[in-house]
Amino acid sequence: MAIEESSVVAAAGKAAKYWQQRGGFKAKILGTEKIGQVHFMYHGDASKLKSFFTEVEPKLYKATETITENMRKRGGGISTIELRNKTSQLDNYYQLHCTFETLDAMGANFINSCLEAIAKTFSAEAHQNSLFSPEEKNIEIVMSILSNYVPNCVVKAEVSCKIEELNEDKNLSPQEFADKFVRAVAIANAEPHRAVTHNKGIMNGVDAVVLATGNDFRAIEAGAHAYASKSGSYKSLTHAEIKDGIFKFWIEIPLALGTVGGLTSLHPLVKLSLEILDKPSARELMQIIAVAGLAQNFAAVRSLITDGIQKGHMKMHLMNI
Amino acid sequence: MAIEESSVVAAAGKAAKYWQQRGGFKAKILGTEKIGQVHFMYHGDASKLKSFFTEVEPKLYKATETITENMRKRGGGISTIELRNKTSQLDNYYQLHCTFETLDAMGANFINSCLEAIAKTFSAEAHQNSLFSPEEKNIEIVMSILSNYVPNCVVKAEVSCKIEELNEDKNLSPQEFADKFVRAVAIANAEPHRAVTHNKGIMNGVDAVVLATGNDFRAIEAGAHAYASKSGSYKSLTHAEIKDGIFKFWIEIPLALGTVGGLTSLHPLVKLSLEILDKPSARELMQIIAVAGLAQNFAAVRSLITDGIQKGHMKMHLMNI
Repeated sequence: MAIEESSVVAAAGKAAKYWQQRGGFKAKILGTEKIGQVHFMYHGDASKLKSFFTEVEPKLYKATETITENMRKRGGGISTIELRNKTSQLDNYYQLHCTFETLDAMGANFINSCLEAIAKTFSAEAHQNSLFSPEEKNIEIVMSILSNYVPNCVVKAEVSCKIEELNEDKNLSPQEFADKFVRAVAIANAEPHRAVTHNKGIMNGVDAVVLATGNDFRAIEAGAHAYASKSGSYKSLTHAEIKDGIFKFWIEIPLALGTVGGLTSLHPLVKLSLEILDKPSARELMQIIAVAGLAQNFAAVRSLITDGIQKGHMKMHLMNI
Repeated sequence: MAIEESSVVAAAGKAAKYWQQRGGFKAKILGTEKIGQVHFMYHGDASKLKSFFTEVEPKLYKATETITENMRKRGGGISTIELRNKTSQLDNYYQLHCTFETLDAMGANFINSCLEAIAKTFSAEAHQNSLFSPEEKNIEIVMSILSNYVPNCVVKAEVSCKIEELNEDKNLSPQEFADKFVRAVAIANAEPHRAVTHNKGIMNGVDAVVLATGNDFRAIEAGAHAYASKSGSYKSLTHAEIKDGIFKFWIEIPLALGTVGGLTSLHPLVKLSLEILDKPSARELMQIIAVAGLAQNFAAVRSLITDGIQKGHMKMHLMNI
């Protein structure tokens, strides 16, 4: 977890200890769907394109068979290929929107290789399709690429306890602490200026583990922040509530991760990190990382609503100096 | 620039060479405003709060005088303190929305220290304000913290050349290349699934330099992606157009950076990086980093619309293995 802020490590440790004494962290996978798209321009009759797609779809799977063979043996592969008409957003713009199950691989190379093969076959078949006019045959593949926006590759992590167990603060009663905590999270939901910083704090924890395990932190960052903005207003990735005397705090975050492939077996520190984590599957790593993000956010919000952020942070920073 | 993808370094080098032969990169600062907020709950008459704020505002500046003294000597400090009524988003929720000029410092510690001092004085003065009812006096400071969402701390970088100078591709004419490039960027504007990955590629370049110069990449990531979603739909951070025979490609990105303070003088590799960059000011570093992001995006889109992303990427990846 050696990123530049020592207070990130301290916060993770402190929150872990706190919740270990109050039932621990629970996590579950809500989905593992990866996404890739072939973006293309088609000038012509949309219904003809639809018929053509239905006809050519089996050939698209066939074109990727050698690429997907090993993945299919292990239970993964291409899940769906869908034709999407995006002409209301941009003239003549269509997609092949593809979903994938990549198991323990992050799957970027796998997905991109599949998409390029799909695009090649799709374009070649269009050129030979007798129902298309010459202009319609001339489909332009603009690009074929995975998406880092994965709103169905999501993990949920949570902590909860009775309000009276939130008992450690000098200036606030457990009930006051719980109420103030819920208010702080509500503010992060209501105000994008706060939400961005709130989520940035979550990513302090998330990225530390993403980096340590040789995953792509820019991909994770992009996916998480886009997910935070999916309602049209940028909001908190964590949520808090009090119900029937129980304080509950949870996160839902999209995480497309790998524990095989990429750097995982190449970089000695990545190998060591994965060993320390007891060689997790990708699904287990999603849960670990969501917990790191939730722990980080708990510690940050707790500091903010009690002592303020500067007291602990500056102590650490002065130790660095 | 040693992040995990060697193709990031290759792309930066390739795009730099390409544009060096076509007039180079140009960049300018559009703003350097940093933001921090005191979030508080007030139960009472909004107009009384407004009068109270007007009365107490000079005292808020005064409360930060020792903190801001050095910054003010150099031309920075607190620019504005504004009372904002956010009760339409959340009951009883108000802010002191503060803006700052922090010069060559990223300013997180400076801003947070100012905000905590402002909050303390604001709350103490409220308790003594004779116009407030007992409930109104009891303002609750929920938290005081900088915002990583800095839509007025923005830099623009661009490249442009005559279309006929875009002459190096085997399969596309310069005009076809320009048209296809503009279409690829239009797709990233129209489709969030593509926009997220498009911007992720920009951040490959941005983060590499952010990390090398000891800046906080989670802060930069959060600010950039929130900026991309500011219209209510997640969009591309880069833009492309063809006008009067000129191809133009540009980026606008918020970057709150420091070249003094924090890790900049503590970490030996950060010191070295800043020396390699000829000891830039924060304003200069904003421009350098925006250019790195633009270069990265140019190289990625160029690969995508010509050879596909896999050819170059896998070559690099196999070299790693």
